[in-house]
Amino acid sequence: MWGGRFAASPDETMKAINASIDVDQRMWREDIAGSKAHAAMLTAQGILTQEDGAAIQRGLDEIAAEIAAGAFPFSIDLEDIHLNIEARLTERIGEAGKRLHTGRSRNDQVATDFRLWVRRSLTEADEALLGLMRILVLQADAHADWIMPGFTHLQTAQPVTLGHHLLAYVEMFARDRDRLQATFAHADACPLGSAALAGTPYPIDRQATATALGFSRPMANSLDGVASRDFAMEALNSLAIGAVHLSRLAEEIVLWTSSHFRFARLSDGWSTGSSIMPQKRNPDAAELIRAKAARIAANAQSLMMIVKALPLTYAKDLQDDKALTFEAFDAFLLSVGAMAGMMSTIQFDRGNLRQAATFGYSTATDLADWLVTHLNMPFREAHHVTGAVVKAAEAHGVAELCDLPLSVFQAIEPRITAAVIPLLSVEASVAARASYGGTAPERVRENVARLRDELGLKA
Amino acid sequence: MWGGRFAASPDETMKAINASIDVDQRMWREDIAGSKAHAAMLTAQGILTQEDGAAIQRGLDEIAAEIAAGAFPFSIDLEDIHLNIEARLTERIGEAGKRLHTGRSRNDQVATDFRLWVRRSLTEADEALLGLMRILVLQADAHADWIMPGFTHLQTAQPVTLGHHLLAYVEMFARDRDRLQATFAHADACPLGSAALAGTPYPIDRQATATALGFSRPMANSLDGVASRDFAMEALNSLAIGAVHLSRLAEEIVLWTSSHFRFARLSDGWSTGSSIMPQKRNPDAAELIRAKAARIAANAQSLMMIVKALPLTYAKDLQDDKALTFEAFDAFLLSVGAMAGMMSTIQFDRGNLRQAATFGYSTATDLADWLVTHLNMPFREAHHVTGAVVKAAEAHGVAELCDLPLSVFQAIEPRITAAVIPLLSVEASVAARASYGGTAPERVRENVARLRDELGLKA
Amino acid sequence: MWGGRFAASPDETMKAINASIDVDQRMWREDIAGSKAHAAMLTAQGILTQEDGAAIQRGLDEIAAEIAAGAFPFSIDLEDIHLNIEARLTERIGEAGKRLHTGRSRNDQVATDFRLWVRRSLTEADEALLGLMRILVLQADAHADWIMPGFTHLQTAQPVTLGHHLLAYVEMFARDRDRLQATFAHADACPLGSAALAGTPYPIDRQATATALGFSRPMANSLDGVASRDFAMEALNSLAIGAVHLSRLAEEIVLWTSSHFRFARLSDGWSTGSSIMPQKRNPDAAELIRAKAARIAANAQSLMMIVKALPLTYAKDLQDDKALTFEAFDAFLLSVGAMAGMMSTIQFDRGNLRQAATFGYSTATDLADWLVTHLNMPFREAHHVTGAVVKAAEAHGVAELCDLPLSVFQAIEPRITAAVIPLLSVEASVAARASYGGTAPERVRENVARLRDELGLKA
Amino acid sequence: MWGGRFAASPDETMKAINASIDVDQRMWREDIAGSKAHAAMLTAQGILTQEDGAAIQRGLDEIAAEIAAGAFPFSIDLEDIHLNIEARLTERIGEAGKRLHTGRSRNDQVATDFRLWVRRSLTEADEALLGLMRILVLQADAHADWIMPGFTHLQTAQPVTLGHHLLAYVEMFARDRDRLQATFAHADACPLGSAALAGTPYPIDRQATATALGFSRPMANSLDGVASRDFAMEALNSLAIGAVHLSRLAEEIVLWTSSHFRFARLSDGWSTGSSIMPQKRNPDAAELIRAKAARIAANAQSLMMIVKALPLTYAKDLQDDKALTFEAFDAFLLSVGAMAGMMSTIQFDRGNLRQAATFGYSTATDLADWLVTHLNMPFREAHHVTGAVVKAAEAHGVAELCDLPLSVFQAIEPRITAAVIPLLSVEASVAARASYGGTAPERVRENVARLRDELGLKA
Repeated sequence: MWGGRFAASPDETMKAINASIDVDQRMWREDIAGSKAHAAMLTAQGILTQEDGAAIQRGLDEIAAEIAAGAFPFSIDLEDIHLNIEARLTERIGEAGKRLHTGRSRNDQVATDFRLWVRRSLTEADEALLGLMRILVLQADAHADWIMPGFTHLQTAQPVTLGHHLLAYVEMFARDRDRLQATFAHADACPLGSAALAGTPYPIDRQATATALGFSRPMANSLDGVASRDFAMEALNSLAIGAVHLSRLAEEIVLWTSSHFRFARLSDGWSTGSSIMPQKRNPDAAELIRAKAARIAANAQSLMMIVKALPLTYAKDLQDDKALTFEAFDAFLLSVGAMAGMMSTIQFDRGNLRQAATFGYSTATDLADWLVTHLNMPFREAHHVTGAVVKAAEAHGVAELCDLPLSVFQAIEPRITAAVIPLLSVEASVAARASYGGTAPERVRENVARLRDELGLKA
Repeated sequence: MWGGRFAASPDETMKAINASIDVDQRMWREDIAGSKAHAAMLTAQGILTQEDGAAIQRGLDEIAAEIAAGAFPFSIDLEDIHLNIEARLTERIGEAGKRLHTGRSRNDQVATDFRLWVRRSLTEADEALLGLMRILVLQADAHADWIMPGFTHLQTAQPVTLGHHLLAYVEMFARDRDRLQATFAHADACPLGSAALAGTPYPIDRQATATALGFSRPMANSLDGVASRDFAMEALNSLAIGAVHLSRLAEEIVLWTSSHFRFARLSDGWSTGSSIMPQKRNPDAAELIRAKAARIAANAQSLMMIVKALPLTYAKDLQDDKALTFEAFDAFLLSVGAMAGMMSTIQFDRGNLRQAATFGYSTATDLADWLVTHLNMPFREAHHVTGAVVKAAEAHGVAELCDLPLSVFQAIEPRITAAVIPLLSVEASVAARASYGGTAPERVRENVARLRDELGLKA
Repeated sequence: MWGGRFAASPDETMKAINASIDVDQRMWREDIAGSKAHAAMLTAQGILTQEDGAAIQRGLDEIAAEIAAGAFPFSIDLEDIHLNIEARLTERIGEAGKRLHTGRSRNDQVATDFRLWVRRSLTEADEALLGLMRILVLQADAHADWIMPGFTHLQTAQPVTLGHHLLAYVEMFARDRDRLQATFAHADACPLGSAALAGTPYPIDRQATATALGFSRPMANSLDGVASRDFAMEALNSLAIGAVHLSRLAEEIVLWTSSHFRFARLSDGWSTGSSIMPQKRNPDAAELIRAKAARIAANAQSLMMIVKALPLTYAKDLQDDKALTFEAFDAFLLSVGAMAGMMSTIQFDRGNLRQAATFGYSTATDLADWLVTHLNMPFREAHHVTGAVVKAAEAHGVAELCDLPLSVFQAIEPRITAAVIPLLSVEASVAARASYGGTAPERVRENVARLRDELGLKA
Repeated sequence: MWGGRFAASPDETMKAINASIDVDQRMWREDIAGSKAHAAMLTAQGILTQEDGAAIQRGLDEIAAEIAAGAFPFSIDLEDIHLNIEARLTERIGEAGKRLHTGRSRNDQVATDFRLWVRRSLTEADEALLGLMRILVLQADAHADWIMPGFTHLQTAQPVTLGHHLLAYVEMFARDRDRLQATFAHADACPLGSAALAGTPYPIDRQATATALGFSRPMANSLDGVASRDFAMEALNSLAIGAVHLSRLAEEIVLWTSSHFRFARLSDGWSTGSSIMPQKRNPDAAELIRAKAARIAANAQSLMMIVKALPLTYAKDLQDDKALTFEAFDAFLLSVGAMAGMMSTIQFDRGNLRQAATFGYSTATDLADWLVTHLNMPFREAHHVTGAVVKAAEAHGVAELCDLPLSVFQAIEPRITAAVIPLLSVEASVAARASYGGTAPERVRENVARLRDELGLKA
């Protein structure tokens, strides 16, 4: 493109570090859409003749077909997707092709293509999370009253319901979707027409191209249009938080399916195995989801490190934004897909879950709460009495507090009555936690109903 | 708090790694606000008597005064701000103090306090950016038609106006504010009442505490309430992008004030110097702003690395969220403050800026555009002709294209007329780029007018 | 220091972002040692008189005493530790104090101080790891033949010995020490005398100051001397890997002490609890060690992000290297100390460990190996036969393969003899894995003996 | 490999997230080398027959030829390079192929392959840096006495020599090589024979395979052998620091070739241009080198984030170590190659460099040093006098201090003599800085001579 002025050709290593066609050819749809919108606007504004405009539209459509068919001759000598397509256009339609680049530059062209790609992918990620949420809501509904241990510090703390546990992730993913949608909104302005960096003297209509490409407005400053990549940084950051949430659930799958928990069993389609170790249904996909979170977060970090302290406007450093972003979206979509696959086919073990919920006298807080409510004991004192009861339970070797004779309770606090005993089962415990947002099955079912409605799931 | 069950005291190293009071005492206002709201709700619900409720309110107010006065005896043996305040309350008001913790837990308490702190700080950061944007808009107004070089690859590309350049940052900071406000919205639900993890059997009113603390709603899932930290991750990510934007402007200040650019001079109050090197007005604050961006981005990464693969619900790893977040907000606010200080007192050098804008035949694109518009040349061919003219200009040793005799133009392309010459000055070039978002002074003034209105700046 | 030339004082925000005395005062020992070595050299070279030299030495010693006693009046107006001490010296000894800065600059002074601090801290970290390794070797010795499950994918894979498992960490920490020592060696050159950046015309003796400060040589290039921070980047990277290793062991402590594993119990001094949940011996220190790894790794990243693309030589961005480094060393030493405390007092449960080792027919590989060795079966076929035996074991409901009747084996493969049965106990399995580096108790004891020798532990 | 036990095939998404053959096929040489060494050892130990051993060697050689010829049928259904090659071997040589996996596992196999790959690549990176250092030493020799400005804070500080500046990078890259070599040494132990995780009952000879593969020893602990990836983390960290050094030089190339510095001109082969803007010799490769540093540092971070808190031993998360590592080495080698290309062909502009060195009275420190040496003034006072002289120079409008009349000096300090004037030229200034490591041309030439010797460059 700028030959003639240089005596020597680029060094081979120079070409290798400089070319981006292997990465950015993935944006061919966006590049063609951008060029079509630009050419249509130029034609409407009388900058191109109707004839040239028509030739360009037709030529670009043919190139799109060619690429879709795998028949396009990509060339590393033409550096990137933009030059590859433009050169091909001129090959096909002649001089009209040389008029396409009027009033724009590669700088605003790549910013527009990349923004289009990111926007589309944000929507794809958003919809993938919606699919996962639906699966989790259905599973929560099916397990609304299954009792399992709630953990803090990976120590059994209090019994909870499995439905409640699964809905915690639904809440997280709902906020992840909010973030993806907010990122979309922040990216919803079109840089096309910023030209090299300063705008252009041609009487272009930026509102028209913005609208044609589905943006709600053109960007208000041309320097910002070609130099900014916060839409990509924000996209990677939003994906990273979502991936962290996925990694937490993935970690739980690894724990739940281990020999020591046996809370759940992955389906055959989502397990890997060993021909000689039968319990070895390895949760490879869950482990890989954990690893993907590290990749996505680091790619976000990498992009911020690239843009940090970069003076305006465009610098070639920005070329590496695309590989980072494509990888991150790929990893995220693969992770959501794998999680959806695992969670839609996982089998929980009701007995193991319930039994684990009783470990460690997990209903001790219920006793303390009873002392507060029925004996008007200050909470800190009630805790103290409860501690003594738990010690006694250990001494008596009972598995659950509700198995302890009343006399033992009364030896510690004479005002305790038999009424408390049935409240100390894990079933009673979860039923009692009926405050808003609590683990009681009725609360879970209310949330399921609300979410079915919000997510378009018929009851 | 859990003494009695353990024979031995914590090891000293254990205490050192475990205590957080040196960090989290900074949340004392939020802790007291949260406790007051909780106690008021317990009283309204009849869970606490009016008398106990009143004692708690009074006691907490007294403690607030004590801390504000620097008279509060913080103790590392009481681990954190929550236990320090609760213990002090019981010291002051007796048994009523022991009733405060009814229906809550440290897990939801710390989540609430931290969320309150982050929300308040998001607003503070948002307002700080507003202040900086106002300064930049005023400077853009004052320099709407000052001509400077626009750069790509740090090479002079095309002339732009200084006002346009400054407004590019206003656009970035506006999106940064959008992100901070979106983060606020995503954090706008209250975890208080989630209790340890499963909710509580007390008839608490979560809507009431949420409203009292300024949240728009309670969080819908108690496990999510105590385990999630995406509000902090998102806050750090949003700050990081803003800090990256600040670092770009900081880099430009370092360049502009260097011996080789001399575009601008920092005020005395924002320079450091050397007693013997007079040009040495070192831009230390700008350099430190660059460094702060690295800190903030890495803290965001650190928090994601902490939360990655953490099973539900609370784990002590989360304790380190606060130091990371406090540091990031401190660094961000300091950076915005320093940038505001520099940009409100910086002196630009009109002559140096204009002269630099002429480097490298920066108006060559204007010639190409004229060839397209007036001779109907395809853009790619116009580029070629322009390249030849530029080569001739170099051979003739003229500083700007508009200094080249018409005959030289015509030797290359006979159809070129004298009309083109005046269009090749830097003034004509910026005036011509009047497309929406372009660098023309009239476009800059329109944007200034719009922004004055949006940002509450009288004209 | 550079007053007079500027009309206005620094802005208050400028002072806040610029001053480093709150952070770098921690290097006071190094600053005084550096100044004493510099002054002694200047005196020996005749650049300072003996009298002035003596006054400086005495003055610096007095200042050291003053700081050690907490009586030094640190001032933010003097920015940093270097100017604070120099100003105090002149206050104390008069004009001789003003001669101390001859032939040096703050640029080489801070580089020297910081290098001294990092070197000392590397040694401290190295010794801390040595202490931890000794504890682990003693524990490995005490548990050389205790059987536990070896995991892959957190699924029981094959039985191993606890001693073997603990020694795996000894190997990792040994390499971490290698890295710390290599980092020390790479930092073992002295920048003092690089002056501002270009060296100095005074006839200084750089070898003398390097030797006096314990470096093996002066740095060979003055620009490199003041501009480089790879010694700090490498230190943080080395700490980060060590912290990652600590985090793996910390994760295991969290798992081992959970209700679902019960492999071990932390001592009272290293547990936190809950007054009402008895099993709740929360492994807070282990969780915090995990979090510290994230902090250290991110600080390493932050420093690389700061230095990235910084032109030579000194820039103020580098000031933030110290806070990052101090924090990382603090976190690392605290983590090693906490790990040493936990691992020296942890109680393992032999019965639970052994029982868990039998889960999932963990000795199936032993059967396959027998088929290969005794029946000359290709390994891949032996795997197939073993899979069938395991299926039969599941169908028969036996807990371990060695409980399965010989007839069942022979129904699958008639050539199997009774000799195989005793080889399928977990004890036989670990004993058989006696290849170099294997889990057999004899191999563990050999390694313990070697390590006792290497680490200076008497048998 | 573990079919038969599962009723259903892996889900397609499962296969997509799980397969690694697209990434790890790059280790085919290492996989074959590892298998050949293993088979030779098994044969020598009598575990395999001579006949089977010979068949395996021959089969593996044929497969190597097949892969090298691009004729190998890689299959995603066989997941990874290990299973692809093993399956092909059995296809080719029959039952003997099924005996290859005796006494090893994919866990130690992949650890061995990856270690071999990393070791080889470390050496490649080390040699690439050696090549770059040689170029820089030759350039330093050619420009030993060219004068340029030395910068701090990107402000002209003191004159230095270009040779000295270039050698600063040679020092950095020398330490980078030290780090790569130390990393190699820390990775110089062989995991092969660790088997699945616990070692093996076969009488294998681990010393033999270690030696055959070029390792100095076998790893001493089998769990460590399959679970540890610190060799890769350290490799990425070492590359990251080297890349940060490259990014600093890249930043300087961007500055030096900008319109505002004009210190140097990149060759045609290492520039990109614009057909219409002649000064636009864009330093794209330098910018991309900056970006690669961000990628490499982030990949290092990503791997640490993956391994953080991973319990022993192998988990599938580790599979993603290879893509991160391959990318980082690719980016590093490309960066070093591009830097070598640029630095071997760059043209410096002696006149512009020297002129820039005079900016800002850059020899003021020389005056201060003269006052100290000849008038016995304390340094801090000499600084004060010099400040006054500089102010006078500004008032007189002279470009350099040596242009100022003696009378002006004497009006400020009467004891100043004419002897000082010639010392204030930039030539005299650099010549005077002849302390060890200083910028004087004689020091530069000494360092060049030493480095020519060390790096094998004839004089």
